[in-house]
Amino acid sequence: MLAEIITIGDEILIGQIVDTNSAWMGVELNKIGVKVKQITSISDEAEHIISALEEAQKRADIILITGGLGPTKDDVTKITLSKYFNMPLKLDEATLAHVKQFFEKLNRPMIEANVKQAEVPDGCTVIMNKNGTAPCMWFEHHGKIIVSMPGVPFEMKYLMTDEIIPRIQQRFQMPFIVHQNILTAGLGESFLAEQIADIEEALPSHIKLAYLPKLGQVRLRLSATGDNEVALLAEVAFHTNRIVERVDKYVVLTEDLPFEKAILNLMSKHGLTLSLAESCTGGYLSHLFTQHPGSSAVFQGGGVTYSNALKQSVLGVKEETLAKFGAVSEQTASEMALGALVNFNTDYAIAITGIAGPDGGSEQKPVGTVWIAVASKNGVKAKLYQFASQRLQNIERSAMAAMMMLFLQLKQDLSV
Amino acid sequence: MLAEIITIGDEILIGQIVDTNSAWMGVELNKIGVKVKQITSISDEAEHIISALEEAQKRADIILITGGLGPTKDDVTKITLSKYFNMPLKLDEATLAHVKQFFEKLNRPMIEANVKQAEVPDGCTVIMNKNGTAPCMWFEHHGKIIVSMPGVPFEMKYLMTDEIIPRIQQRFQMPFIVHQNILTAGLGESFLAEQIADIEEALPSHIKLAYLPKLGQVRLRLSATGDNEVALLAEVAFHTNRIVERVDKYVVLTEDLPFEKAILNLMSKHGLTLSLAESCTGGYLSHLFTQHPGSSAVFQGGGVTYSNALKQSVLGVKEETLAKFGAVSEQTASEMALGALVNFNTDYAIAITGIAGPDGGSEQKPVGTVWIAVASKNGVKAKLYQFASQRLQNIERSAMAAMMMLFLQLKQDLSV
Repeated sequence: MLAEIITIGDEILIGQIVDTNSAWMGVELNKIGVKVKQITSISDEAEHIISALEEAQKRADIILITGGLGPTKDDVTKITLSKYFNMPLKLDEATLAHVKQFFEKLNRPMIEANVKQAEVPDGCTVIMNKNGTAPCMWFEHHGKIIVSMPGVPFEMKYLMTDEIIPRIQQRFQMPFIVHQNILTAGLGESFLAEQIADIEEALPSHIKLAYLPKLGQVRLRLSATGDNEVALLAEVAFHTNRIVERVDKYVVLTEDLPFEKAILNLMSKHGLTLSLAESCTGGYLSHLFTQHPGSSAVFQGGGVTYSNALKQSVLGVKEETLAKFGAVSEQTASEMALGALVNFNTDYAIAITGIAGPDGGSEQKPVGTVWIAVASKNGVKAKLYQFASQRLQNIERSAMAAMMMLFLQLKQDLSV
Repeated sequence: MLAEIITIGDEILIGQIVDTNSAWMGVELNKIGVKVKQITSISDEAEHIISALEEAQKRADIILITGGLGPTKDDVTKITLSKYFNMPLKLDEATLAHVKQFFEKLNRPMIEANVKQAEVPDGCTVIMNKNGTAPCMWFEHHGKIIVSMPGVPFEMKYLMTDEIIPRIQQRFQMPFIVHQNILTAGLGESFLAEQIADIEEALPSHIKLAYLPKLGQVRLRLSATGDNEVALLAEVAFHTNRIVERVDKYVVLTEDLPFEKAILNLMSKHGLTLSLAESCTGGYLSHLFTQHPGSSAVFQGGGVTYSNALKQSVLGVKEETLAKFGAVSEQTASEMALGALVNFNTDYAIAITGIAGPDGGSEQKPVGTVWIAVASKNGVKAKLYQFASQRLQNIERSAMAAMMMLFLQLKQDLSV
């Protein structure tokens, strides 16, 4: 089953916003066995909308359109669809009641343009948008499904999850798809592929294996398609176990979660707390953890100790250590981690100190040199990493490496 | 002048990566007066590449293709272009020498697939890729320009900036374009438009005004097109001044910089230092500042004090204050800011404490309630914000509001 995504509006074309919607939709559609054939970003012009829609229908069965449904004159999507499908606009009473209620709740006056948001092409299926005022519209046209929805991410995501994906599954009687992720680290994609080549080759044709590499990790994804969900689950479990057994020491987790969330879950389950001492990552790792609801049960806080003075006063790093070994050293990283552990009173602490670049490198310690330490009541371990020259990549890779060190330590300490 | 962007590869379609390249390219092309008509993401299939290329040439003069140039068999872009333009592949000696040198520097063995990267369609203009092994290829075809370049962001960005954009400007004898940004905050887009309606209407036809709203700010952008750069600069300065005078108290800056970078520059110029005390933003604001090279001259560090215990021990917030007013209160925010100022020994300190959600809200303090304080030797000021229900949005909006408070304080203290 093929789908296409059409995003409407100038914001993406002029680079004002990055199109994160389409990637999210791609992931969700893949999960139910729908492959995205093309993503097309176009301007808010009737002619362009129609030609994109016609091209898309030549290639795919499902066309998902986001954006272009705002109340202003610029947004011509709805009137264009109304003309294209030959369905005159009519006021949808249920939508109007919803829009009215929406404005009442916000305690804001409703203007004529907002009433117009309740008009829909006569003949489409209207899907109420609980998170906004623009309704979602579902069209069936020569056996193809065309859905128009708002581009605001939290409106689009809720509509996709709660309304559109279940309807697609029902409408096309989609087969079951079972996915299983295996997150690995420490082995490059091609080496990993070599190690499990025979397992991959022996997979039945209805089970696919994908390699998704990112920042020093490779996520393996098994996807099985069929009519019997119970059988699929068993089959996938069997092949997952074979892979995990084979590359055991590189397997990080087999859940479909961001790494930091998996760590939070593991620590929360065991009642453990965490603090951070960040230098070159400058708060990025703290942000990764704290973006997740409920992180405060584990993450107590940390110090973003950019300056040497703060490494001393906040974390208790010794002046002699900094003078003798420098801020980017095994000794400083270890003292930072131990300082965080004690001063922030947590079960585990991570310290990261390095040269993110582009300045600050030397022959002994070039840009990309990073020391990471993990401390717990069992002591402290520090490790040297050598990344590359790009500042933001160095920040991201340092955070990832730090999580990996913590995770391996937790696995060892908890024997999981 | 119209351009289209075609991205090739499954990574975007399956949602493995977000297409940040196209937004960046859209911004850069706009700066030289090239409008992006469509962005198309397609899979790595010859037929699909050719149809997308043909469609794009019907609409635009410049087609920029990214991705699909890796050394593996999956990447069919080069061979497809070779067939499409009827230019057989030949080995490019200069590229081969470059690739060889690249591998020597990395001290890695070169395999057959890497040699193939030095093959190019006979007749295209080869543009050397200093940052990678896949060369950039420039085709001229029935008056249209088609450029194929790697999708790796730092290879693509350097090729666009140093090679492709200058060549486009030369090839099409593009007019001069002068841009001027005016970042405003505190006034919604429609109210702002109302305030400057007469100025906008009086703009000559070769000067356009765009409204780019984001997170409580509106960026105004004046773009003037013409043959006389000096005259354009004078004209744009004239209209910029008119707008700035009219909405003076909402104008934040008139440079084309991220807000946090403008703050860093201003503070650096005056030799001022900054520290942060972050609770609900959890390190996000520290990360915003520290992603910029050279931030360490201003940003000394901060505390990510998620727990109440750390608010006390790291920042010196009084236990009675937390007990009496709660962690999300004017009093706690003020003590956090003053604590950071003293403990981290900086000229300015920002504190942010709030309920990011989705949990932790109450009737008195619903999710989205945030207190922000700015402290300096002149004292401390705190302000209450009420954002909405989305955790990540609350984090981003809090960071933005905190920067605004600091900026206004700096403007006042420095009389700038």
